[in-house]
Amino acid sequence: MFQSFESTAEPQFGAERVARLRAKMVELGIDGFLVPRADEYQGEYVPECAERMAWLSGFTGSAGVILVMAEQAIVFVDGRYTTQLKEQVDGNVFTGGDLVGEPPHKWLAAYAGPRFRLGIDPWLHTKSEVVKLRDALAGKNGSLTLLASNPLDEIWDNRPAEPMGKVAIQQVEQAGDLAKDKLRRISENLAGAGAASVVLTDPSSVAWAFNIRGADVPHTPHPLARAIIDSDGRVELFLDEAKTGIESRAYLGQICEQLPPSAFLDRLAATAAKGGVMLDPELVPYVLMGIVEQAGGKVVEGADPVRMPRATKNKAELEGTTRAHLQDGAAMVEYLCWLDRQEPATLTEIDAVKALEAARARVGERMQNPLREISFDTISGAGENAAIIHYRVTTQTNRSFKPNEMFLVDSGGQYVNGTTDITRTVAIGEVPEEQKRFFTLVLKGMIAISLARFPKGTRGVDLDPLARIALWKAGADYGHGTGHGVGSYLSVHEGPQRISRAAMQELLPGMILSNEPGYYRPGAFGIRIENLIYVEDADMIEGGDRPMMGFETLTFCPIDRRLVVTSLLTDEELRWLNNYHAETRDKLLPLIDDAEVATWLKRATAPLS
Amino acid sequence: MFQSFESTAEPQFGAERVARLRAKMVELGIDGFLVPRADEYQGEYVPECAERMAWLSGFTGSAGVILVMAEQAIVFVDGRYTTQLKEQVDGNVFTGGDLVGEPPHKWLAAYAGPRFRLGIDPWLHTKSEVVKLRDALAGKNGSLTLLASNPLDEIWDNRPAEPMGKVAIQQVEQAGDLAKDKLRRISENLAGAGAASVVLTDPSSVAWAFNIRGADVPHTPHPLARAIIDSDGRVELFLDEAKTGIESRAYLGQICEQLPPSAFLDRLAATAAKGGVMLDPELVPYVLMGIVEQAGGKVVEGADPVRMPRATKNKAELEGTTRAHLQDGAAMVEYLCWLDRQEPATLTEIDAVKALEAARARVGERMQNPLREISFDTISGAGENAAIIHYRVTTQTNRSFKPNEMFLVDSGGQYVNGTTDITRTVAIGEVPEEQKRFFTLVLKGMIAISLARFPKGTRGVDLDPLARIALWKAGADYGHGTGHGVGSYLSVHEGPQRISRAAMQELLPGMILSNEPGYYRPGAFGIRIENLIYVEDADMIEGGDRPMMGFETLTFCPIDRRLVVTSLLTDEELRWLNNYHAETRDKLLPLIDDAEVATWLKRATAPLS
Repeated sequence: MFQSFESTAEPQFGAERVARLRAKMVELGIDGFLVPRADEYQGEYVPECAERMAWLSGFTGSAGVILVMAEQAIVFVDGRYTTQLKEQVDGNVFTGGDLVGEPPHKWLAAYAGPRFRLGIDPWLHTKSEVVKLRDALAGKNGSLTLLASNPLDEIWDNRPAEPMGKVAIQQVEQAGDLAKDKLRRISENLAGAGAASVVLTDPSSVAWAFNIRGADVPHTPHPLARAIIDSDGRVELFLDEAKTGIESRAYLGQICEQLPPSAFLDRLAATAAKGGVMLDPELVPYVLMGIVEQAGGKVVEGADPVRMPRATKNKAELEGTTRAHLQDGAAMVEYLCWLDRQEPATLTEIDAVKALEAARARVGERMQNPLREISFDTISGAGENAAIIHYRVTTQTNRSFKPNEMFLVDSGGQYVNGTTDITRTVAIGEVPEEQKRFFTLVLKGMIAISLARFPKGTRGVDLDPLARIALWKAGADYGHGTGHGVGSYLSVHEGPQRISRAAMQELLPGMILSNEPGYYRPGAFGIRIENLIYVEDADMIEGGDRPMMGFETLTFCPIDRRLVVTSLLTDEELRWLNNYHAETRDKLLPLIDDAEVATWLKRATAPLS
Repeated sequence: MFQSFESTAEPQFGAERVARLRAKMVELGIDGFLVPRADEYQGEYVPECAERMAWLSGFTGSAGVILVMAEQAIVFVDGRYTTQLKEQVDGNVFTGGDLVGEPPHKWLAAYAGPRFRLGIDPWLHTKSEVVKLRDALAGKNGSLTLLASNPLDEIWDNRPAEPMGKVAIQQVEQAGDLAKDKLRRISENLAGAGAASVVLTDPSSVAWAFNIRGADVPHTPHPLARAIIDSDGRVELFLDEAKTGIESRAYLGQICEQLPPSAFLDRLAATAAKGGVMLDPELVPYVLMGIVEQAGGKVVEGADPVRMPRATKNKAELEGTTRAHLQDGAAMVEYLCWLDRQEPATLTEIDAVKALEAARARVGERMQNPLREISFDTISGAGENAAIIHYRVTTQTNRSFKPNEMFLVDSGGQYVNGTTDITRTVAIGEVPEEQKRFFTLVLKGMIAISLARFPKGTRGVDLDPLARIALWKAGADYGHGTGHGVGSYLSVHEGPQRISRAAMQELLPGMILSNEPGYYRPGAFGIRIENLIYVEDADMIEGGDRPMMGFETLTFCPIDRRLVVTSLLTDEELRWLNNYHAETRDKLLPLIDDAEVATWLKRATAPLS
């Protein structure tokens, strides 16, 4: 099992740990200290040894930051975690803050006393964050101290060791491009940007550029590693030898110099002496900016050069992920067929998670393309739990299914040829008409994105409303974006592409996105329908005068026909749904080896009228 | 007639005038001089005495700037004016530049020689522009000189006098709010912004705040005037006495001190000595920033405080504009009925403009609410001329109608109770099916905006794609925004509200917008359908869980049924169209006094199926 259902939080230690941290803060002469969820790599998933926020407070959410002061300790979280926060932390020690409306820098600007002294670990914050904190403190005649070591780490007894996950080579059949060619292009582009070198600090960028994968953090198969690439072609990879075997060491030896992570700062200083160093102000730990400048070097701010080529998948990556999605679809079909046969009262949300992971593992073995990981902890919510957008079932929250409700399952698999992410909402018995109506409105939004065509220059923000307008007309909406970028056997949340009201990145051919509108009625029911799609090259439409891009669908798996109110669909929408189901049947039936499952699939994909 | 069809340009004088300007530039020791379309008030329409760009070059477009240098003179225009530019200027003297892709500051950064000395008239440029020019010249070790007087004005013999249009009081029945209350609120809000005074330099802001209207520039009924409002309640209006009669002088005397425009700079300096002066960096002539600072004052940058209250119309303004639109709709119906009776071959685009203005004037007299002005020069394009988005017919371009083509007419009227703007595209004979198909696709977009509901926080950018998606799916698009803001008996192009891919302003109740998707096939045909709409307060929708805003339609006038391909409409779209026509008939029929017109209206609004 890749997923656990235990809460690892230890809220009972919060008071004592905060007290010890405060003693350290007095020694350091600071009035406040920030403990962010982010680690030294600014990744979405962090290794256990970097779960500082959870260790200190007990809060295990995937985003947040704690501001510890002499009398107060505030855990800033966003709207999806306000309930969880109350359950996980000791209310005598911690209060809640608003990560979106009043994050730490705004809180400090509003409430910090005069000459407030804030300390931070500059490995855990980007330049963008530091600038905001500095501005906030300037108004107080305060100060920001970049601490040489993290006081929390010093009081963390029995801190887990750094992970040493094994590195695997991502074969060129999957990557579609040799690492040496990728590295050469990055190197060649440096001159145009006025830099002599670039530092890759995002482990997913390192994984992509070197065609390697790792196993250091949950769910995202990248190794924690950094790299320096020079304009003269020199490439240094800072990756612990313990993570590489004979084969990968030999492979890496051909394209770079593999150095221990401990050598990174010295090498960065040496590189800085040679000319401008390109660093991404949104990604790079702030401490690196100082090291470059102290070495007499110049920081050239620029976006991580891997970001765009990684986002625009090549032919091999698209073909691989297409196959991965068919395999994943077959597993979903086996699972949904099994689910339909269960007696609701004897089935729990955790049972459902286990059965799904087992189906993915089973189909993976059968098709000789094993499930390497799940893309994220499966969201398995029945009835009112489906209304919690980022619900993660634990032994405490686990609940049995009841007849006549909906069940929402959002999950994905990591395969060497692709990363999947799919949500289906299914009927358990006879679902009330009103819930079916909302299911159909959500489906209309999902179809609108699937059917969209759009000219060059269109950004995610320009498509987002198409997924919402049917709900808006019904007086409803959903409180999340419509789609996020997805990697190729990498992070399931990849930038810069996305579909949301803040998505200003132009959509380009090869970008993989999720298409996942939803609707949530708190305490009652929740709906989300999610396919992955990718942007297709522009082509001409007959009778038109300019080429239009569109989406190719990756995810094939039945959408629950029992929840569709066909009278609410336009002819065009109904046609899409029936075509989608016909295609699903044709693509998945050959991958099914069980007669009962095959029968279920045929029934689940029969046309509606 | 408010519209003229003559081109007033004098391109034949370009060479001589540029030569004289260059001589002045040598005297002043500058290598380049900018002649923008903008005047001292940064308005869309400028008085004849400020038509510097047209006087120098012959180019009469509504946007652009000329960069005059020793050897070159470049007229920077946007895409809609590239053809017109070639026809209007002397190609031996002027070359064309790209106002959007490479405006003067970018051109200078790319091509200006070292130590380039640019001169500008700081009355004609905003701070935002000056900052860009300074940055561009800094890279050349160049300099920007703010000239004490405009060298072009010095060589402009027989320059027209400044306009002295009569000022009228905008009655509270129309304005819905007393000027003294508006002024008091502006004054009271200053303290919160950290300013002791604010300068209104936008004549539309002055008109709105003082409840006055003027007649200094074509089409926009505001007086060229400025005002200073202090936080202590003191209000100074700089408005030439020649523009006010006994009544308006008495009215203004109750709410402010009316001072001659010549007193403005001294009063501004005196005000600056008292504390921070709020100036809008996007609107205010740059020269004012210097005057405040030279007087020892502090510039507080902030948006014009009239912008938001003017945009969010009150009940009286909305009721007034509703009535104005019905009256304007009656005129349009008389006109369209007349148009249908004409023999195409004997009818020209200019005839069509004249007939429309006559209809508006006739209905205005009949309803005792005279047409005060047209909102802008009527766009009257038949056949391929309709594909020119900002086509303005002149005696040179005037063309007869032909059978079996479409005619596009975009026009509006200024009435004391509202400003209208409407576009209809109508069939002249039997229009080809392919053109009808595009008409219907444009109509689908226009209906999508009309039917939209949206939550609080929605911006224009979030609605724009709804108007395009039907065209996108057909491989087509249009190269302009979907909607612009409209004033209340003020500018027909009013900010900050709009619907476009750049429209980040949140839509708020009471904002009036145009809804005008289109499609243009150069050299062949053009389509635009435009209604004005306003944002309505949020209300609950049955079965929904949050209030939604929506649009109320202002414009009522038949949409040409002969061009609608009903099979391309959804049930919902067809229902909207039939309801719209039923409402149009019910609202306008009582305003029609001619039996033939009434019969035409009934036929033009009959339901489609």
